[in-house]
Amino acid sequence: MQYVCLVRYLGTDFCGFQVQPERRTVQGTVQAAAQMVLGCPCRVTGCSRTDSGVHANGFCLTVAPEGPCTVPAERFGQAMAACLPPDVSVMQAGLMPDTFHPRYAALGKEYLYLIWNGRVRDPFLFGRAMHFPKPLTGEALCAMQRAAEALCGTHDFASFMAEGSSVQSTVRTVTAFTIEKEGDLVRILVSADGFLYNMVRILVGTLLDVAVGRKMPEQMTGILAGCSRTLAGQTAPAEGLYLNRVFYPSELQLFQ
Amino acid sequence: MQYVCLVRYLGTDFCGFQVQPERRTVQGTVQAAAQMVLGCPCRVTGCSRTDSGVHANGFCLTVAPEGPCTVPAERFGQAMAACLPPDVSVMQAGLMPDTFHPRYAALGKEYLYLIWNGRVRDPFLFGRAMHFPKPLTGEALCAMQRAAEALCGTHDFASFMAEGSSVQSTVRTVTAFTIEKEGDLVRILVSADGFLYNMVRILVGTLLDVAVGRKMPEQMTGILAGCSRTLAGQTAPAEGLYLNRVFYPSELQLFQ
Repeated sequence: MQYVCLVRYLGTDFCGFQVQPERRTVQGTVQAAAQMVLGCPCRVTGCSRTDSGVHANGFCLTVAPEGPCTVPAERFGQAMAACLPPDVSVMQAGLMPDTFHPRYAALGKEYLYLIWNGRVRDPFLFGRAMHFPKPLTGEALCAMQRAAEALCGTHDFASFMAEGSSVQSTVRTVTAFTIEKEGDLVRILVSADGFLYNMVRILVGTLLDVAVGRKMPEQMTGILAGCSRTLAGQTAPAEGLYLNRVFYPSELQLFQ
Repeated sequence: MQYVCLVRYLGTDFCGFQVQPERRTVQGTVQAAAQMVLGCPCRVTGCSRTDSGVHANGFCLTVAPEGPCTVPAERFGQAMAACLPPDVSVMQAGLMPDTFHPRYAALGKEYLYLIWNGRVRDPFLFGRAMHFPKPLTGEALCAMQRAAEALCGTHDFASFMAEGSSVQSTVRTVTAFTIEKEGDLVRILVSADGFLYNMVRILVGTLLDVAVGRKMPEQMTGILAGCSRTLAGQTAPAEGLYLNRVFYPSELQLFQ
């Protein structure tokens, strides 16, 4: 058996999820804490690789100890809290067979992108939201929503992938894509069966082009069809991006 | 004339508001930025002195330059943004006669105290809320609210002042005191015509004693009457405290 954990982290001071030599990473940090808690080397496997500065509200990972799972699952989160730094927490934990893989078992994911639309920076959102000072009016938000709707469904998202990435297929299915504004905070939520490298950040950059009238919602179809990174907007900064949720088959009964 | 500014800051990396030699303070930081913006020495006066680690959503301060106010008020916030570090912002600015004093003119203040009541730490609230892991049930919240109500009104709050402070009078009027829980986040709001040193943090510590049954709401009257710091609860940590709002006479028309 292995532990399966719902993890939350503030990405600001991590060089992304994946272990890299001489860098502070989420995977390396969780691995070291698990070894302290369980007293044996542990293998940590994530549902995704988030980039440097990207946050997670609900990241799923497994902790497979070389030895037995000596700490009960319901106490694992608190035991880990004593060994983890303040910017990462195990919010929930359970036990799963070793065959469970948090990336391969996932049906899809939901990302949140936060935009602070106030005229001046908000100190409480530094590193936690993109600052976009030009006011996003109702009209702009409407245009963004129309563009988002045009991008929903199954498409080749090659135009929305960072150049230089290689994957077998660039076809993905976006199942939901919404924009809401509350006060000066804009929340963009996008769900898909999978995401290409930098896809959410390029989608957000493209919606912001639509917001300022640099692109029209009607152009989205052409941008998709063109299959070229140069057609889409800029890559929005990492600091606004949150891996919000990972979807698993309900029969696995993870984190209910 | 002088500028009057509504300022927001994350208190984590500041040694409080007031200038101290060799320390990073809000007053010192704002003063240095104002001097860069206006090109002359400036005197910064605050509505209050917040302690190290205490935050502010709506702190009021004045910036009195030695020379004239060369930057229009409506552009002052953005001009300051270019010279201020990311953990402090001028959210709004106006002009007021030099006779206006942000502390003496205030009718009262509202503080917010945030408590994270989740079982494990939330990385996004580290340094921004007190972590209180014991679940605050409906019953506990009710008892806290009854205690808060008993503390409303005009009383001698000597029991709720840090020892060693000296003031002419320890009588204050608490005009509102509410507790609400949304998910695992508890928000305590308290307004008064003025606050004694550490008063909000001691009030919160006392409410938490009530929450866990260590004190009864009915004891509040006795704690007030006893006028001794030893009767009230512990001082809750600085990191959960926010100076939320400062109240001024409406005829001043500040920050409408």
